Amino acid sequence: MDPARAIADLRELAARTGGPDGARRVCWTPEWEAARAFLRERVASLGGPVEVSVDAAGNLWAVVAGRSPETVALGSHVDSVPAGGWLDGALGVVAALEVLRGVAEEGSPPPRTVALVDWADEEGARFGRSLLGSSAFAGSLDVEAVRGLSDAEGVTLPDALASYEVSVEEMALAGVDRLDSLCAYLELHIEQGPVLEAEEQPCAAVVGCVGVERHRVVFTGAAAHAGTTPMDRRADAGVAAAQVMVGLPEIASRHGGVSTAGQLSLEPGIATAVPGEAELVVDQRHLDAGALSAMLSEAALLWESAAVSENCSVKVERIWSIEPVPFHPGLVRAAREACVDAGGRDEPLPSGALHDAAELARVVPAAMVFSSSVGGVSHSPSEDTAEADLQRALVAFGTLATRVISDGVPS
Amino acid sequence: MDPARAIADLRELAARTGGPDGARRVCWTPEWEAARAFLRERVASLGGPVEVSVDAAGNLWAVVAGRSPETVALGSHVDSVPAGGWLDGALGVVAALEVLRGVAEEGSPPPRTVALVDWADEEGARFGRSLLGSSAFAGSLDVEAVRGLSDAEGVTLPDALASYEVSVEEMALAGVDRLDSLCAYLELHIEQGPVLEAEEQPCAAVVGCVGVERHRVVFTGAAAHAGTTPMDRRADAGVAAAQVMVGLPEIASRHGGVSTAGQLSLEPGIATAVPGEAELVVDQRHLDAGALSAMLSEAALLWESAAVSENCSVKVERIWSIEPVPFHPGLVRAAREACVDAGGRDEPLPSGALHDAAELARVVPAAMVFSSSVGGVSHSPSEDTAEADLQRALVAFGTLATRVISDGVPS
Repeated sequence: MDPARAIADLRELAARTGGPDGARRVCWTPEWEAARAFLRERVASLGGPVEVSVDAAGNLWAVVAGRSPETVALGSHVDSVPAGGWLDGALGVVAALEVLRGVAEEGSPPPRTVALVDWADEEGARFGRSLLGSSAFAGSLDVEAVRGLSDAEGVTLPDALASYEVSVEEMALAGVDRLDSLCAYLELHIEQGPVLEAEEQPCAAVVGCVGVERHRVVFTGAAAHAGTTPMDRRADAGVAAAQVMVGLPEIASRHGGVSTAGQLSLEPGIATAVPGEAELVVDQRHLDAGALSAMLSEAALLWESAAVSENCSVKVERIWSIEPVPFHPGLVRAAREACVDAGGRDEPLPSGALHDAAELARVVPAAMVFSSSVGGVSHSPSEDTAEADLQRALVAFGTLATRVISDGVPS
Repeated sequence: MDPARAIADLRELAARTGGPDGARRVCWTPEWEAARAFLRERVASLGGPVEVSVDAAGNLWAVVAGRSPETVALGSHVDSVPAGGWLDGALGVVAALEVLRGVAEEGSPPPRTVALVDWADEEGARFGRSLLGSSAFAGSLDVEAVRGLSDAEGVTLPDALASYEVSVEEMALAGVDRLDSLCAYLELHIEQGPVLEAEEQPCAAVVGCVGVERHRVVFTGAAAHAGTTPMDRRADAGVAAAQVMVGLPEIASRHGGVSTAGQLSLEPGIATAVPGEAELVVDQRHLDAGALSAMLSEAALLWESAAVSENCSVKVERIWSIEPVPFHPGLVRAAREACVDAGGRDEPLPSGALHDAAELARVVPAAMVFSSSVGGVSHSPSEDTAEADLQRALVAFGTLATRVISDGVPS
């Protein structure tokens, strides 16, 4: 692993498909094609024989055959959100590229087959469905749920993908031929959170991806004149929602999870009216399914009691939920050792965001390494990581990958 | 006072300028002209000599000369919000019309001159400035502050008013000739609040209009990823705003005022981001200036401490404030006696909304009578008052007006 080469690749990719206004690599667009063209160029210039292919879901594979067909897959995604950061996804792809380059330079076949994979449409920026390529590969994509999606211009997902030779009918078969040969999936990514930077740590192993419970909580009271309605005759849906917003952080902190109320709308939403309706979205996350369930139960008590105290009714709808995805314990341990060797954090972190590795972890032993993120900022042109931290994270990832390619998945 | 005739006038006005979709009498529009045409017709059909004129601010006056030039003015406004209620404003105008009708039917000049006044643009529905005509008359209109206003189509206020022969330059002189002759102003209005209906009271005297302190409170924290940002590393502007929303009602209740947080916007305002900014509008009202000031001081402590506890900064801007407007004590007492005689409430109510009477009270002894409001609803097609309550409120207003016309303003 030569971290300087990987970082040079990142800068070249940013020069071609990014710039001061951020990364321009939205999946299923010409700019994403440009990023893939860059990746294909780099793969073509590797020393040895590399087989490049695109699977039925649009995921790009570059494979160096090893002495065993057992395959260690390394990757992430080159696609980005509009005006995104230069590292989100791209870091993991160039890290995989650099490992592949090292393997190819060896001249002799590696102990195991090594595959770089660039997952298609991790971000869901155009059609709103994240992890599209990796979920199709892992067999967890519900084709019926995406067939009807369309972008802001009204182009349907099936039409857009067809122009990239991806058939929605067949994409769920993307993993059929290859999945059995995979023995491990490893991914390097930026943390997209503030923990490592705050602790002055360059990198850490990731223990798994948190589960999510996301609910829409709608309080209905009675809209009324702000001046003429005495306090004791109000049914203020805004106050009920505010009680939930104030109470959630304590629940999350006590359980060691996170909880966010990022979206609230009040009706009629004017200064001179008591809100008759308040629609709040509550997002709760935890690495442990039992703790997440307990957080949700306590939140439900909170919104029920807020409704009672403010003379409102409350309706709750689950918008989205996923189970926590723990990574493979042996791989997490190996990732932790590689991070510590590179000067990183001794304790694995949970990932509060989802990654392609969460889809892969359903079907194959998987693990991740995080680099630090400046200010925890991501999905923004100002996304960045100190270069010294990038180097250490790349070294840790290279160490981990080399060990798994050599020795297989630790028990 | 014949309440049945007044109610018949109300129904006729609603038939011409309202209907199932609500009142259509937005000021400075042809539909408002239609309402005024109705009023002119009714005035023309009164028994005796009535002088009709429109002052420099567009307020319509119908005057029956008395034995003394000292004038008792009675009125309200025929303009409405779009899709408004049939009673808001119209009730006070037809009540004044009915008093005038009774005076004209007497055949001999009343002890004092009696004037019906229909204030122009009480609602501010087209240009956003309420109490336009009455504030111009009372000398409190800042012409510079309204000259630049325009409606949703971009028509400027000066242009719109010019087509009704009202010059913005001269409207502030509307009261110059008449003000000295006024000895009292009396207005009947619906409560637009739930108190009288809840107490099963048909009507009450109004002790004054509450003062208002309205502030924009902007918390700035740090937008961050909902999944990757631990609870102890957040600066959640939404939680800070919610703390204020939760704390305000207790402050208002303890002081006997009202407080409303009806408008809140979160940025970026999505489920997956900790709010980095929250903009809250806080509206506080009280009849007593000292109590209002105390409420504001306590609210300021609340938002300062919320900012500190959530690692946010806070900026506060006063959007609007008015001093409380107490009505004339002698007239309030007379109004209360008239209400009690008509079967109404023994205790005067504060008005939480503003009325033309609040402008008049700055320059002349003034008072109001409220009728009940079904459900406290106003500015809506469903605005209503039980007919029996309307009758009693009209009787009370008639009694009050007759007494003041006869005896002048009680000390």
